[in-house]
Amino acid sequence: MILLRTQIGAALRAARVNQKRTLREVAKAARVSLGYLSEVERGQKEASSELLNAICSALDLPLSKLLSDVTTVVVASESPVIALQVVDNAA
Amino acid sequence: MILLRTQIGAALRAARVNQKRTLREVAKAARVSLGYLSEVERGQKEASSELLNAICSALDLPLSKLLSDVTTVVVASESPVIALQVVDNAA
Repeated sequence: MILLRTQIGAALRAARVNQKRTLREVAKAARVSLGYLSEVERGQKEASSELLNAICSALDLPLSKLLSDVTTVVVASESPVIALQVVDNAA
Repeated sequence: MILLRTQIGAALRAARVNQKRTLREVAKAARVSLGYLSEVERGQKEASSELLNAICSALDLPLSKLLSDVTTVVVASESPVIALQVVDNAA
């Protein structure tokens, strides 16, 4: 089962890593504790909407962009999986 | 400032009302309390990701559809507002 907090955390982490910034830097800019940001990124804690905005702001990442990225992943996860089986006709 | 929980709540409420279902019906189907669902719909409580999935399931609303709807609203809210002024040239 896909969880929204897991996907939000992964997207926040990807944005931070892409900017080559540390947890400490972004946590300070967002005025959240390093532990909180770390737990949010790992999908272990639900970010409150207010702190999610603060983290997005610290990352200069519009909430719409975050949601758009998360939506893309969730759509893909809900799509039917096409299983391909390679059949060796030559055998 | 736009808050994710407000938009999620509004989208859940819209889906429920569109289905002409009561809070009581959906809360029962999702196995959450009526008060919890009501608070989530009004954006007063952050839904946990697990309970959000349960509510979506009760509404037969894919999480991807919910997020897509929410993203659309958030994108619109972040767009620059174009103020139109009607000028009466005939005056």
